[in-house]
Amino acid sequence: MPSFGRTLAEIPPSPLAAVEQLLRFHGHESPVGLQQGKTVFTPCATPRAWDRAEFGIAAHEHAPPAGVPALRRRFADAATSRRGTPVDVDQVLVTGGATHALSVILHAILRPGDDVLLLSPQWLFAAGLVRAAGGVPREVPVFLELSQHREFDYAAAVEAAIGPRTRAVYFNSPNNPTGYRLSEHRLAELAELAERHELWLIADNAYENYDFSPGGFIDTATVGRAAERTFSVHSCSKTYAMPGARVGHLISPPGCAEVLTKWSLHSVCSVSTAAQFAAFEALSTPPGELAARRALTADAWRLTDEALEIPHTCASGGLYTFLDLRALGDGGEFVRRCAEEGVGLAPGRLFGEHCAQWARICFTAAPPETVREAVHRINGITGWRR
Amino acid sequence: MPSFGRTLAEIPPSPLAAVEQLLRFHGHESPVGLQQGKTVFTPCATPRAWDRAEFGIAAHEHAPPAGVPALRRRFADAATSRRGTPVDVDQVLVTGGATHALSVILHAILRPGDDVLLLSPQWLFAAGLVRAAGGVPREVPVFLELSQHREFDYAAAVEAAIGPRTRAVYFNSPNNPTGYRLSEHRLAELAELAERHELWLIADNAYENYDFSPGGFIDTATVGRAAERTFSVHSCSKTYAMPGARVGHLISPPGCAEVLTKWSLHSVCSVSTAAQFAAFEALSTPPGELAARRALTADAWRLTDEALEIPHTCASGGLYTFLDLRALGDGGEFVRRCAEEGVGLAPGRLFGEHCAQWARICFTAAPPETVREAVHRINGITGWRR
Repeated sequence: MPSFGRTLAEIPPSPLAAVEQLLRFHGHESPVGLQQGKTVFTPCATPRAWDRAEFGIAAHEHAPPAGVPALRRRFADAATSRRGTPVDVDQVLVTGGATHALSVILHAILRPGDDVLLLSPQWLFAAGLVRAAGGVPREVPVFLELSQHREFDYAAAVEAAIGPRTRAVYFNSPNNPTGYRLSEHRLAELAELAERHELWLIADNAYENYDFSPGGFIDTATVGRAAERTFSVHSCSKTYAMPGARVGHLISPPGCAEVLTKWSLHSVCSVSTAAQFAAFEALSTPPGELAARRALTADAWRLTDEALEIPHTCASGGLYTFLDLRALGDGGEFVRRCAEEGVGLAPGRLFGEHCAQWARICFTAAPPETVREAVHRINGITGWRR
Repeated sequence: MPSFGRTLAEIPPSPLAAVEQLLRFHGHESPVGLQQGKTVFTPCATPRAWDRAEFGIAAHEHAPPAGVPALRRRFADAATSRRGTPVDVDQVLVTGGATHALSVILHAILRPGDDVLLLSPQWLFAAGLVRAAGGVPREVPVFLELSQHREFDYAAAVEAAIGPRTRAVYFNSPNNPTGYRLSEHRLAELAELAERHELWLIADNAYENYDFSPGGFIDTATVGRAAERTFSVHSCSKTYAMPGARVGHLISPPGCAEVLTKWSLHSVCSVSTAAQFAAFEALSTPPGELAARRALTADAWRLTDEALEIPHTCASGGLYTFLDLRALGDGGEFVRRCAEEGVGLAPGRLFGEHCAQWARICFTAAPPETVREAVHRINGITGWRR
């Protein structure tokens, strides 16, 4: 057999599968998997037998490379109303989930060896996506520092990490795994810095519906002049509780449509037509329902926050808190101990090189009472190295 | 706005969209679009409201990165029976269509600047996929030569094109756009050559169900020792008439699973769960029904062959014949003239640099009688430069 050119050997294979295996191995009678990022909400739309007349194409027919026109229109309208400035349908690319949107962006902006700053800790596939696009991920630890020290100068930390080959800054707010949310002031500092260094901003808005801070979700493209350099990545997975649909979208500055569509075309051709129909229907979810889910998520956070004896980050949004295990030892060992007790957590090192003594808990992956019970099990083992 | 790293400027934007625009522009009263590769067959499966119990996961939930287990099992079983040797489920990766499978393979095997030989003329996205993966496509004209000269030594032509950075040979048999089918002997020559030069073989089997030659479809992996270096790419789009589902699969030599799954994971995360359910159901299409569609395709070919006055390639399979316009002038100009008459064709240059005086007609894109009537219109304009 000939050899591979690039094996992505630097990326761990199926990191969360290892946790699932641990849970199965220990065979606890009522295991609670809180390692994966998900919610218990019902999906906002599910497949059905669509009629050709509904969208002008049938589910078995190819959608246009940039997406089903009616869906792009709805995404453009939603962005226009969120931003308060017109977003043209040409700025919208429907993608096979947020992962695919990020892959398309990174392929388009990177030349081999260029680097991307990842505000860290970061979503567990972010570094791998940069590598897969031929780039070099550079983690810039900011979220734990921001969580712990009000005076932390994160703009200085980001600026210090910028090198001659830096092309973009990737960030996720509300942040997975810390729950930290960048304020408008923090986003403005980032936008100013990106402008000064001629960098792209890649805003991963996967948790836009779950920002339960008083200010609520901020679309980075509305901050200062950020819109001219911001790729806004959105996902149906968390917002509409339908990760299996694999539909997301990307809103780019004007003038990027042809390049980005070509990259999408030369990766997946087009996005599953039926999945786009389901996404379109999900967009009709009443705003009150989405707000109710946000409130339930905030409740789940408060319940978890109250129950947890281990120090952890304070969530302003998202589905997670990050457990600080520095007083207890290694995070991976703690995850193994939790699995023995039938609770699945995600080891911190998946989210950043500096996070080996942390672990992530998803407080929406099971009903609130189940999560609380799982937290009690975790509390019970914190003495393991004392 | 910062700049892009790679714009894929060498690739034409939406090549067939230009033909559609031409057809609309001329506003013929009964336009017949034969530019796109498709069939008039009904889809073998369509979306419905699946129950969680059917596949062990719900349609709105994430499928595993390598695919829905039941679907992988079915693809492995089908390959085992087709090949006559066991294909393990680990060798199967479910992909977002054949395009995505090719993207995954090319990303895995290429380093920037490596080249891939494309047996030419080739599928219109093949060169772009190689470029998008950082490689250099090298077209090796063989199919027109094989069609016209029985004595053409294609193995020598391929071998002459191999350079120090050649990593793979991509080919599609039955071939789009010529309808030429590589015989077992031709495939054996290719396999021998690939073995001697330590190259991968990338077999694009999009038209496996439409090989209407007496010998029928040959799975390249069954030829000599080809299995140890062959990536077999399969699509549901043509076989089951459901291109909108975006489901294909890749069968690799043993030992490739982890690397390929990582590449897939870091491009789309997973394939739409509902689309995989539909693909699973399509696999229950009775073999007799698939054979009947093959026979109908062969009938469409014979009707087209008889009606066409323009010289054209002889199809042993696939959905196309390639029109030889060398006596008439430029292929692009001919496509424009056909659009005036309300018939859409695909310009030859999309399929190879040496094919500017050719054009592709898809003889299954409309019902047989409609195709025949369109061919008569085309015949009527062949005198345009005489």
